[in-house]
Amino acid sequence: MKPIYITRRETFNAAHKLWREEWSPEKNYEVFGKCSNNNWHGHNFQLFVTVKGIPNEETGFVINLKTLSKILKEKVIEEIDHKNLNLDVPFLKGIMASTENIAIAIWDLIEEDVRQNGGELAHIRIIETENNFVDYYGGKEPF
Amino acid sequence: MKPIYITRRETFNAAHKLWREEWSPEKNYEVFGKCSNNNWHGHNFQLFVTVKGIPNEETGFVINLKTLSKILKEKVIEEIDHKNLNLDVPFLKGIMASTENIAIAIWDLIEEDVRQNGGELAHIRIIETENNFVDYYGGKEPF
Amino acid sequence: MKPIYITRRETFNAAHKLWREEWSPEKNYEVFGKCSNNNWHGHNFQLFVTVKGIPNEETGFVINLKTLSKILKEKVIEEIDHKNLNLDVPFLKGIMASTENIAIAIWDLIEEDVRQNGGELAHIRIIETENNFVDYYGGKEPF
Amino acid sequence: MKPIYITRRETFNAAHKLWREEWSPEKNYEVFGKCSNNNWHGHNFQLFVTVKGIPNEETGFVINLKTLSKILKEKVIEEIDHKNLNLDVPFLKGIMASTENIAIAIWDLIEEDVRQNGGELAHIRIIETENNFVDYYGGKEPF
Amino acid sequence: MKPIYITRRETFNAAHKLWREEWSPEKNYEVFGKCSNNNWHGHNFQLFVTVKGIPNEETGFVINLKTLSKILKEKVIEEIDHKNLNLDVPFLKGIMASTENIAIAIWDLIEEDVRQNGGELAHIRIIETENNFVDYYGGKEPF
Amino acid sequence: MKPIYITRRETFNAAHKLWREEWSPEKNYEVFGKCSNNNWHGHNFQLFVTVKGIPNEETGFVINLKTLSKILKEKVIEEIDHKNLNLDVPFLKGIMASTENIAIAIWDLIEEDVRQNGGELAHIRIIETENNFVDYYGGKEPF
Repeated sequence: MKPIYITRRETFNAAHKLWREEWSPEKNYEVFGKCSNNNWHGHNFQLFVTVKGIPNEETGFVINLKTLSKILKEKVIEEIDHKNLNLDVPFLKGIMASTENIAIAIWDLIEEDVRQNGGELAHIRIIETENNFVDYYGGKEPF
Repeated sequence: MKPIYITRRETFNAAHKLWREEWSPEKNYEVFGKCSNNNWHGHNFQLFVTVKGIPNEETGFVINLKTLSKILKEKVIEEIDHKNLNLDVPFLKGIMASTENIAIAIWDLIEEDVRQNGGELAHIRIIETENNFVDYYGGKEPF
Repeated sequence: MKPIYITRRETFNAAHKLWREEWSPEKNYEVFGKCSNNNWHGHNFQLFVTVKGIPNEETGFVINLKTLSKILKEKVIEEIDHKNLNLDVPFLKGIMASTENIAIAIWDLIEEDVRQNGGELAHIRIIETENNFVDYYGGKEPF
Repeated sequence: MKPIYITRRETFNAAHKLWREEWSPEKNYEVFGKCSNNNWHGHNFQLFVTVKGIPNEETGFVINLKTLSKILKEKVIEEIDHKNLNLDVPFLKGIMASTENIAIAIWDLIEEDVRQNGGELAHIRIIETENNFVDYYGGKEPF
Repeated sequence: MKPIYITRRETFNAAHKLWREEWSPEKNYEVFGKCSNNNWHGHNFQLFVTVKGIPNEETGFVINLKTLSKILKEKVIEEIDHKNLNLDVPFLKGIMASTENIAIAIWDLIEEDVRQNGGELAHIRIIETENNFVDYYGGKEPF
Repeated sequence: MKPIYITRRETFNAAHKLWREEWSPEKNYEVFGKCSNNNWHGHNFQLFVTVKGIPNEETGFVINLKTLSKILKEKVIEEIDHKNLNLDVPFLKGIMASTENIAIAIWDLIEEDVRQNGGELAHIRIIETENNFVDYYGGKEPF
């Protein structure tokens, strides 16, 4: 019984800004720099979702990637692609739209769907630019 | 006397939308699809700027890449990075912010600076996503 | 009136072999090497299709990328993705399935569709592996 | 004594299909979709093999990458590159050729060779396409 | 309280050779191969530094990436970029310049700075070429 | 008779510096910046060589990529990989080792070999870093 991990990548293009309403523009700029631009900026985000499990004896699959991709497209990408992460996305309402928080929110959004399809959600990575990305393991600390 | 081409890449992250004020939301959506989202979306853009010239005998350079990078940073990237292409950028005012038009606008903005530094602007590529990019040769049609 | 080039990338995963029936296995191996393996091998191909034109005044588009992507998906990708290039693809019947020939065949297949949608097909690139790709300009020789 | 991990990438291009003989074509298509195409399809696979160890005091190496590459080339790549994963590969005989199963089979094939060269096999990743890959840690579950 | 990991990439271009003074040239070549070339060779190195922490409630940040980037640029990149790793770099003095050892040395150099800025250094990856990289977790063995 | 272009990528890792002996260190630094570091720096270079021709009727090939790769490996890569471009490379002797000049030197070195194997050398690209590369068309100016 050999657990293995399979990862699916999806992409989304979105606008956001890092901004706290209760702070002055000066403080927002001091903390968030260019990311606080009032009129938004944006990114080509890459989302990697990893599911852990034992390969099925008949299919050799941990989870059918068509199923995983369908979950991701319906639950995440449709809500978030070509959207404004601060204004348009129900599952991010009230959340500071840092990449860290987006990763946690996506985890909470899809964990149960993955489980009901026979897998265990193990890892979410969001690449924001070629120079930065975040990793979330559902609260686990592998290292 | 052997002409050669040297290319510098710069990157910028920006928000935009494709939208014509005089059109109905329905027509905007019909033509521009998800890109017409009222609250913007965004991309990690990659800008490639190519300069043609004869390598200098002493330096071996067509143009010093420090000089080219300085032009690009001061004239283009500072104006456009972490900005809203529809609202924030002087050199794009009044221009439909398609990638095609952005490429042409950047050409017009930097052509003279490149010339004054001893090179000839030859090619601009803007990569918007891993699935689409535009190329502009200053009106030339190499193919 | 400034001509500009826009490129759309599509991907397909396919099997093929390089093999001439009238040659002996030894000669096939001598010429085609590992690519002549009788039981096939395969690649993740990347297809880049470039259309030339003048940006439309209202949309800023040379061609609507949704339109171009639809042509490519219906005419090319559906026929070729997860297929055997030697056995399964009508538009490659009777053609030695080298990357060169595939590029020419795709050009001939889509040139008219691109024209009817207001663009001019200008360039096809097929990347076969990270170490080799072909470029076809419809018979033009830009360099 | 600081354990560190070193990774070597090798690539192979291969054909395969996902297919169970005892299932009807319809059921195969329902489960495996396009991947069940009778005439095969293929990929440019990337194989990443990670070895754990303490850097040698004289060489600074966990394992000499020339040695690791030689193991991978002789044991894996020669058997699998430009081959049909269902038909041609001794170490995959009788195994459903999912990426998950290929990763496990490669682990079992090389684990002892890595140990005899002073390292400990720690991680195998196989990238099948830019949108999916699998990770195997020899049965360990780091997260 | 959900720990999450954020990663910053920096790049540096450097020369080095693998060479032990007390060995003959023949033995150096036998062990280090082409990497022992007396006149040096070089690489475009990519450095990925990962910090673990709980996102700050106000900023959503584990650590401000501007802060992390500043640490990396001042402590590491300025010392190492466009340098000779065997001759020019104080924090590598007396260390065989294998990628493994460079990763460990960078960890020791920045661990305290990261801590003083509220994060916990969790992972360093150095990519030397597209075919090899090392990972260091500060002595932890996640797998 | 449809001319098409095929490209082969090879890689080499090398050290170099930009330096003129007859200049003072100050002037060298002023012109070449960090690239003038006396103790060298280095890069992972990527070399793309493009050959033009008509696909052979039997093979579908412009040129057999095995042949092209053999030329590149014997004439270029063996001379230049894991070497010092200023000191070790016969075909760069007396040449300021800018990427521009390296591209021209490689063209002159292989043009005849390509011709004798039935192709026409059309384009050389050398990527020095992810942010800069040069293109040489043998003196032609396609744009």
